[in-house]
Amino acid sequence: MNEYLKHDEWCVIEEGFNPENHRSSESIFSLGNGNMGQRAMFEEHYSGKTLQGTYVAGVYYPDKTRVGWWKNGYPEYFAKVLNAPTWIGIDVKINGEMLDLAKCETSDFVRTLNMKEGVLERTFIASMSNGNKLKVETKRFLSIVDTEVGMIRYSVTPLNFDGKIKFIPYIDADVMNSDSNYDEKFWDILVSKSLSGEAYITAKTKKLDFHVCMGMKYDVYKDGQKLEMNPALTEDAKYVSNTVEFEVEQDEELAIYKYAGVLSSLNHSKSEILNDAHKVVASAYEKGYGKLLEEHVARWADKWSHSDIVIEGDVAAQQAIRFNIFQLNQTYTGEDERLNIGPKGFTGEKYGGSTYWDTEAYCVPFYLSTSKPEVTRNLLIYRHKHLQRAIENAAKLGFTDGAALYPMVTMNGEECHNEWEITFEEIHRNGAIAFAIYNYVRHTGDQKYLEEYGLDVLIGITRFWSQRVTYSQAKKKYVMLGVTGPNEYENNVNNNWYTSTLATWCMKYTQEAMAFVKESNTNRFNEIMSDLNFDFNQETAKWNDIIENMYYPIDEETGVFLQQEGYMDKEQILAVDLDPKIRPINQHWSWDRILRSCFIKQADVLQGVYLFEDKFDLETIQKNYDFYEPRTLHESSLSPCIHSILASKIGDIERAYNLYLRTSRLDLDDYNKEVHEGLHITSMAGTWMSIVEGFGGMRVVNGKLSLNPLIPKEWKSYSFKVRFRGNLLNVRVSEEGVGVINEEGENITLFLQDDEYKIEKSSSLVIENA
Amino acid sequence: MNEYLKHDEWCVIEEGFNPENHRSSESIFSLGNGNMGQRAMFEEHYSGKTLQGTYVAGVYYPDKTRVGWWKNGYPEYFAKVLNAPTWIGIDVKINGEMLDLAKCETSDFVRTLNMKEGVLERTFIASMSNGNKLKVETKRFLSIVDTEVGMIRYSVTPLNFDGKIKFIPYIDADVMNSDSNYDEKFWDILVSKSLSGEAYITAKTKKLDFHVCMGMKYDVYKDGQKLEMNPALTEDAKYVSNTVEFEVEQDEELAIYKYAGVLSSLNHSKSEILNDAHKVVASAYEKGYGKLLEEHVARWADKWSHSDIVIEGDVAAQQAIRFNIFQLNQTYTGEDERLNIGPKGFTGEKYGGSTYWDTEAYCVPFYLSTSKPEVTRNLLIYRHKHLQRAIENAAKLGFTDGAALYPMVTMNGEECHNEWEITFEEIHRNGAIAFAIYNYVRHTGDQKYLEEYGLDVLIGITRFWSQRVTYSQAKKKYVMLGVTGPNEYENNVNNNWYTSTLATWCMKYTQEAMAFVKESNTNRFNEIMSDLNFDFNQETAKWNDIIENMYYPIDEETGVFLQQEGYMDKEQILAVDLDPKIRPINQHWSWDRILRSCFIKQADVLQGVYLFEDKFDLETIQKNYDFYEPRTLHESSLSPCIHSILASKIGDIERAYNLYLRTSRLDLDDYNKEVHEGLHITSMAGTWMSIVEGFGGMRVVNGKLSLNPLIPKEWKSYSFKVRFRGNLLNVRVSEEGVGVINEEGENITLFLQDDEYKIEKSSSLVIENA
Repeated sequence: MNEYLKHDEWCVIEEGFNPENHRSSESIFSLGNGNMGQRAMFEEHYSGKTLQGTYVAGVYYPDKTRVGWWKNGYPEYFAKVLNAPTWIGIDVKINGEMLDLAKCETSDFVRTLNMKEGVLERTFIASMSNGNKLKVETKRFLSIVDTEVGMIRYSVTPLNFDGKIKFIPYIDADVMNSDSNYDEKFWDILVSKSLSGEAYITAKTKKLDFHVCMGMKYDVYKDGQKLEMNPALTEDAKYVSNTVEFEVEQDEELAIYKYAGVLSSLNHSKSEILNDAHKVVASAYEKGYGKLLEEHVARWADKWSHSDIVIEGDVAAQQAIRFNIFQLNQTYTGEDERLNIGPKGFTGEKYGGSTYWDTEAYCVPFYLSTSKPEVTRNLLIYRHKHLQRAIENAAKLGFTDGAALYPMVTMNGEECHNEWEITFEEIHRNGAIAFAIYNYVRHTGDQKYLEEYGLDVLIGITRFWSQRVTYSQAKKKYVMLGVTGPNEYENNVNNNWYTSTLATWCMKYTQEAMAFVKESNTNRFNEIMSDLNFDFNQETAKWNDIIENMYYPIDEETGVFLQQEGYMDKEQILAVDLDPKIRPINQHWSWDRILRSCFIKQADVLQGVYLFEDKFDLETIQKNYDFYEPRTLHESSLSPCIHSILASKIGDIERAYNLYLRTSRLDLDDYNKEVHEGLHITSMAGTWMSIVEGFGGMRVVNGKLSLNPLIPKEWKSYSFKVRFRGNLLNVRVSEEGVGVINEEGENITLFLQDDEYKIEKSSSLVIENA
Repeated sequence: MNEYLKHDEWCVIEEGFNPENHRSSESIFSLGNGNMGQRAMFEEHYSGKTLQGTYVAGVYYPDKTRVGWWKNGYPEYFAKVLNAPTWIGIDVKINGEMLDLAKCETSDFVRTLNMKEGVLERTFIASMSNGNKLKVETKRFLSIVDTEVGMIRYSVTPLNFDGKIKFIPYIDADVMNSDSNYDEKFWDILVSKSLSGEAYITAKTKKLDFHVCMGMKYDVYKDGQKLEMNPALTEDAKYVSNTVEFEVEQDEELAIYKYAGVLSSLNHSKSEILNDAHKVVASAYEKGYGKLLEEHVARWADKWSHSDIVIEGDVAAQQAIRFNIFQLNQTYTGEDERLNIGPKGFTGEKYGGSTYWDTEAYCVPFYLSTSKPEVTRNLLIYRHKHLQRAIENAAKLGFTDGAALYPMVTMNGEECHNEWEITFEEIHRNGAIAFAIYNYVRHTGDQKYLEEYGLDVLIGITRFWSQRVTYSQAKKKYVMLGVTGPNEYENNVNNNWYTSTLATWCMKYTQEAMAFVKESNTNRFNEIMSDLNFDFNQETAKWNDIIENMYYPIDEETGVFLQQEGYMDKEQILAVDLDPKIRPINQHWSWDRILRSCFIKQADVLQGVYLFEDKFDLETIQKNYDFYEPRTLHESSLSPCIHSILASKIGDIERAYNLYLRTSRLDLDDYNKEVHEGLHITSMAGTWMSIVEGFGGMRVVNGKLSLNPLIPKEWKSYSFKVRFRGNLLNVRVSEEGVGVINEEGENITLFLQDDEYKIEKSSSLVIENA
């Protein structure tokens, strides 16, 4: 824990500069706009500890892999989100002395992330060693309207002197990844060009040939008056800058407005990217700071109008949930189906590749309810486009005939991860991808998606499962050997209940989807069957045989679903029995001790109970929850939210609230002492789920929205927005009751506390508690 | 397979020079004397493909480890056998042109490893590009008497010219390990000194501060006449040489005799090592080539007189078994209890550290029968000395109270291996170390060893097992969770029959050993109990409870011992069902496919049946053999020998012989296309076991030697030597019958075909077949 940030409903605020917290703040105050993102590094030179991070969506590097012992099937490379040339730099010299917060005294330091407007601000007073005292104010944003544009306003006001102030705005391409496996640099520089008032660098990745072009243009104002400039130009191989110097008197404000363009070859032809950068920069410059900011703030207001959650009576909780929603909206906007959501988003390097099952299991529910259907649809199409790669991936492991195994970690559909017990065995990810299709269709009602993109993915996945099971002559059942479930504190187990349950669910749902497509569009159905060389009778007969004869481990005494066969052979002790000093166990226990223990990292059986809740009665849910939650250490950020939702489900609002607390301020209060590496972006969606699906009890039942809200006693009220099919609903829950406003769309019928209600267009429903 | 070597009873012979085979030959023709060893590199410059390897026993390097994903408990380093400065070099210039077999035409090339004498010879005729034709003869040995001395005789005879011949004898310390994890060099040079007629280099390892000093001195003779020399000296930072040039006429032989000293700080003080090297070199020089060779050959004759196996009627088999015995005797002589036997001995870098469970499981039986008891005793004391490290190793993994886990791979007692499923889980190695003590005591009768060194090791090991089991409430039995058996094609399984059987055996034997020591030396017993803080009643009660309630997986239908719980859930196909094209599967199948298959890399259940054969009736042995052998792929060099022994046991001499063939010429005929990396030293002991324990049926029964010989129909006869307690027996088996000569020691009674016989001192027994 490290609680140094001020609580506020709309802002994250750091008061006073503590270099020890700087890298953590660089993560927490990160900015992004879906198309690019960056850590909250300082614009001016900083010689203290920093983790530089400038990221351009979709631009990655296949770093040469590093393993201890090679296993057949390992991929050749590990794709990394790439630290790109930095464009925020503005060195500042005061009467010849470089401004550097590591080397001067700082007072009145305030760093603010204004989440309502998507703006990072900073003010401070610096006392230089030459005795000069000055006030600095900065404001930075990555336009969410013009997503190739970044904007900085940086001002300096002398407080006790008249003198010379130099601004050196620059672009620096001499950057590297701190997680480079062999300390290699990943960029070659193609163009570096410095003109009067502007500069450009084009760089290409040493492998894969991604090009990026960073450009800048700037103005300087003194007390609001634009100044004439005659800059000195620097044009090094990897660095371009302008140097401008001005005489300033005490209390005069000297402000530089730096307009940046950030373009990549994902969106521009390589031959035109430099020209296009000129255009992007020129057009931003023309629009001007005020207009750019105004449009940016307006777009954020619109985003908030669909996705905000308002909590009354708990500022820390209010700040936390807005922080989570804000970061998710900064990371992924759903406009480009080539992109996805990395576990750290644009806030750090850890975990390399961008796409994990986190996307389908955690992020999809968030975007389904808070954005237009197209956003989630693009996440699904991303996987559709990787189907062939998933088939190749499965073939490398020995599967045939169109079986598809989606990778554990990927940028382009190829597997990057190299740890056999995960890469080859944590195959439940494949099921999550199928489930996301189901989830999308039931939430949006867009069944047509199955025809266009969904069915071939479902069939590839189901074919994989049908080959991955083994018929055990000993059990006279199908078994699933050698898997790792979501609980990575077990490896290479047999008959993981979650994985097996998900596998047969895929087999059933794929057949439902096939039946639907056959019915709705027979031509398309026949086309798919033929494209996939699908032998309907034989393949579905096999699937149905597996569905009927699958082995699921169950504790005979209690009826609890067993995480895997043999789980009850372990010593059964509980999390409360552990000395808090040895937690998290992954930092204190040897790996084999963790594996042999009964302790669970994150929801595994309960992940399945959560997904398939409608298949189990409340007693079964309660029984499994009561068994597993006390054995779960929540050492994955993805764990508490699922448990919180289930605790709400069984009516235990107290436990649900406590579990919610563990997830909502995970990064803001740095629970795990690792926020300096970046934020837990994907688990932020879980926090949102804890409120909406947990406290709010939101489900889809028979194609209709259903709400069963509870409210933690610590809160006065909370309200959230839900997009469901054509409607946008505003749900407000308080001790007094529940109100639902039908903000957008036609009349809707929904379930509230299991009773069916109709809410007319633009009307509301209020149910007061008895 | 690559059969390019000529069959011969005493020699390994390569005729004709094929550069493609050179690295393989460098392995096969390796020399060693227990204290040092080297690959069979050429003395003269060679610009073709070569794997340079000069090794000094006990000198290693802790290379920075390389892992993909760090796990708690992994060691910080991986210790490597170190490629040391090379002292064999003699560059040869003929009228100014460098002799280099990669650049001249070679004829009449013969490379010979004379195993009887321990000498490497080479002759060839070279035609240089300048037209000069010359004959070269070399002879090299590492004295097994003066084990810090190496000797080379290198002669050149002009065949078609008179001219100038230059010899440049040198020592080169600019060497590196080809398996260096980060391409680092591991040596710093302290002294390089070139004098007239001699030269020295002292080098130290960059970590651990091992020092080695290599020295050389030489003479040159023309047609047997010693020549006066006036050498040019070179003294570079990492290289020292003398250059001497002579006028030679056609058909005159110019011969250089190079005496080398190889000293290490294991045996010399660092301050004196250079002085000592001068003395070692001077003393060898004084003794002279003839005497050095004579003593060396005599000592080899003595070694052979105890360890030879003679096979009549099969030259290939004869050559093969002698090659195996020769290499084992080159690798380890048992004179230094700080040393051990690396899987590649002194023949390559692969596998890094020197000590694996191979030593106890395979090499101990060989040395017990072919050497004095002290040799094996030193191997056991090596582990005794590492007991504290084994306790620390176990503590790192969470074990307490003196539990000891010996490392999977080590140089100094610390674990080097970093693959969790092996490092933490392949714990059966601990049992092999206990079994070796039992094996030593039963073979030598040296029960006193238990008092001095054995008991504390046994207790540490047994304490580990008693903590490593888990009491399963579900089974009401003790279970052994999360292990990897000898069959590394399964990882992280529960209740591996071999491991569990070995664990409870350790618990029983440790108690027997305790009872013996208590009886024979109560004071010592009390001392050990007190030193180890041993709570006799409580600890042994726990052990006995485990012994009585251990869970062993058994197939209920057939009674076959199951390799692990759940083994019968796998698809049961056989090795014969596999397409030969996909074998070895470890080169063709993904790792997860291998893990999920029923295929077995090497004896696992059968390793246990072999160790504890006396506990099972023949039907049980046969049943398990018949079940497992068809599922075993023998993709470990340690596998066929165990199967061959068991095949002999159940009387299937045909299968036993076929399995023997797979092991005996493994390296000579390069079955696995990997001999260029080095020889399979430890598995060579298994080949010896296949004959003596397999065909010969040698066992220890109730403290007496027992023989049950069979003979493959391909052989006329075979004979082997066995040291057993005070006796040296010569056993000869032919179709006609069995003869045993009591060559050394007093009268002995033994079992032959289960009947008891007495053989008087220096007498023999002949039993003719009916």
